[in-house]
Amino acid sequence: MRTYKHGGDVYSYDVEMDFSANINPLGMPESVKKAVQESIADCIHYPDPYCRDLTAGISKKENVPEEYILCGNGAADLIFRFVLAKRPKKALILAPSFSEYEGALAVGECEVSYYTLSNQNGFRLTEDFLHQITDEVDTVVLCNPNNPTGRLIEPELLEKVAEQCQKTNTFLFLDECFLDFMEDGNERSMKNKLADNSSLLILKAFTKMYGIPGLRLGYCLCSDKELIEKMRSASQSWAVSVPAQAAGVAALAETKFVENTIQLIKQEQHYLLSELRNIGIPCYPPSANYIFFKEEQGIYERLLKKGILIRSCHNYPGLEHGYFRIAIKSHEENEKLIQAIREVIKEGSIWQR
Amino acid sequence: MRTYKHGGDVYSYDVEMDFSANINPLGMPESVKKAVQESIADCIHYPDPYCRDLTAGISKKENVPEEYILCGNGAADLIFRFVLAKRPKKALILAPSFSEYEGALAVGECEVSYYTLSNQNGFRLTEDFLHQITDEVDTVVLCNPNNPTGRLIEPELLEKVAEQCQKTNTFLFLDECFLDFMEDGNERSMKNKLADNSSLLILKAFTKMYGIPGLRLGYCLCSDKELIEKMRSASQSWAVSVPAQAAGVAALAETKFVENTIQLIKQEQHYLLSELRNIGIPCYPPSANYIFFKEEQGIYERLLKKGILIRSCHNYPGLEHGYFRIAIKSHEENEKLIQAIREVIKEGSIWQR
Repeated sequence: MRTYKHGGDVYSYDVEMDFSANINPLGMPESVKKAVQESIADCIHYPDPYCRDLTAGISKKENVPEEYILCGNGAADLIFRFVLAKRPKKALILAPSFSEYEGALAVGECEVSYYTLSNQNGFRLTEDFLHQITDEVDTVVLCNPNNPTGRLIEPELLEKVAEQCQKTNTFLFLDECFLDFMEDGNERSMKNKLADNSSLLILKAFTKMYGIPGLRLGYCLCSDKELIEKMRSASQSWAVSVPAQAAGVAALAETKFVENTIQLIKQEQHYLLSELRNIGIPCYPPSANYIFFKEEQGIYERLLKKGILIRSCHNYPGLEHGYFRIAIKSHEENEKLIQAIREVIKEGSIWQR
Repeated sequence: MRTYKHGGDVYSYDVEMDFSANINPLGMPESVKKAVQESIADCIHYPDPYCRDLTAGISKKENVPEEYILCGNGAADLIFRFVLAKRPKKALILAPSFSEYEGALAVGECEVSYYTLSNQNGFRLTEDFLHQITDEVDTVVLCNPNNPTGRLIEPELLEKVAEQCQKTNTFLFLDECFLDFMEDGNERSMKNKLADNSSLLILKAFTKMYGIPGLRLGYCLCSDKELIEKMRSASQSWAVSVPAQAAGVAALAETKFVENTIQLIKQEQHYLLSELRNIGIPCYPPSANYIFFKEEQGIYERLLKKGILIRSCHNYPGLEHGYFRIAIKSHEENEKLIQAIREVIKEGSIWQR
């Protein structure tokens, strides 16, 4: 069997419940399903390479000019396009963080230095990170909240990071893919800084909030129009499929769905945290729709035997074995997970509390 | 309005009939539509990054081992992945030919030399091309039949090209995306040479034959497994969407549909050629599902006024203004095109015959 470095691999295992991918437990809105269905007939045409309708919709939603926006075949497509367009020579990234950053930087033959987040600080980003942003680093990649840790960057620190980047002529690539799940996500976003800072790019996804990872749709925001055009040319002309564009346009109208999701996540985050703590599993403070924790290694295999896939984080740089991430799912599924973990404990051998 | 360098741009114009994109006039098979419909529910999961079911199906259809196969977000995705994985320094390409080759080579910062096909030879590839394949060239890109000219490479010459490439340690990137539309396409394919020639890659698409350009699905075949793995890592992990994978699996079962398409194209190619010649428009000998011809410039604008989009080829390197390409469509549509061209002639000013 092939080894696979991400969550969500429901193809290699016999999985009943997938807690390994951070997807909205409410699934795909009905309007999005319908839009995709209706778009099938249009697939006899090439997609609009400029994603014109979708870009206009994103512009309204995010309140940024259309020329700041580039859509991609999932957010991951845009990470690679950024590297190919910007050609960074030396990048500073967090360990642990989303592994596609490294993959893209490797393709761009960019030297990577890691800032290793420490267990002692609960994997929080701290002020000493600022000292790592020097003239020698041309690109900093941050993810807020970070994945897989779920830790947020304090707004004051994030502003200082942006300032330090500008001082040292360093580009800031900021992944905000999971901010959408937070009540104060819009306030935490750095998008209001875009107009005054052309060395800032914000990455966003439709994947997680609208339950469409299989369709592939992401976008980025940046006021450096030359960079946006270079990113457009850095790969093929028709990266975003007809169904993905249709799904995106429909998704943008789903404001109530987003509100319901945020409330559900808040409620279920609370439920899972208190249950896990009752069981004796200490969790790092979560923010978005996933929870990061340390536990004995056996939990992964034992849950998988029960048809439950969680994300083992051992293959993230900066993490040893024994770190795990679970998505926050529906109450019913979360209850089943807690029940399964209790059963695993009763089996004895790995946990003695 | 944005300028757009390819055919199929039905988004910029009010188009009733699109003759500018070379898509199967039979459209999408019902089974493919159904497979896409049924796949929508599965879009709540990430796609299988290894496209396992699809790869197994392609392996059977093409009679090549699974490890020779890589699927992409359309064939165009694989052109970029090839350049990023292989990192050619000096490539030899045809002028005119499909422009995504150039786009990808530019991203890879590869020096490009052009072999300009000549009107005097009817844009055929001739033996003197062999002299251009030297030790200094590390990659040759060919398209058979060529796009937009529709000219086939003689099998003997193609074999000589492959031999000369091997002699000079030059990689041969061979685009066979349009061979599927030909009765003898399977015999003309170089895929039976793959096992003995690890410096040969063949590019194929689902887009054209199965009428799904909007879904994005292509693949390539190469016996250099290291190159295939490098191409896999050259961009994101989930390039091929869930609907595209489902469509591909369903399409592979459509043998009768393919036969019907080939017969229809043959018949309509004959019809269009004789009608165009009657009108007095000389065409280059076509092979696949499109026809290339030279005409006065005004034809494009005049047909567009009637809601008919054809491909103006003026932006291909090696072509001046006045070359056009039309797709072969259904008999009804082809008749309408011929009727429209006759009307344009009656209007007088551009044609006096």
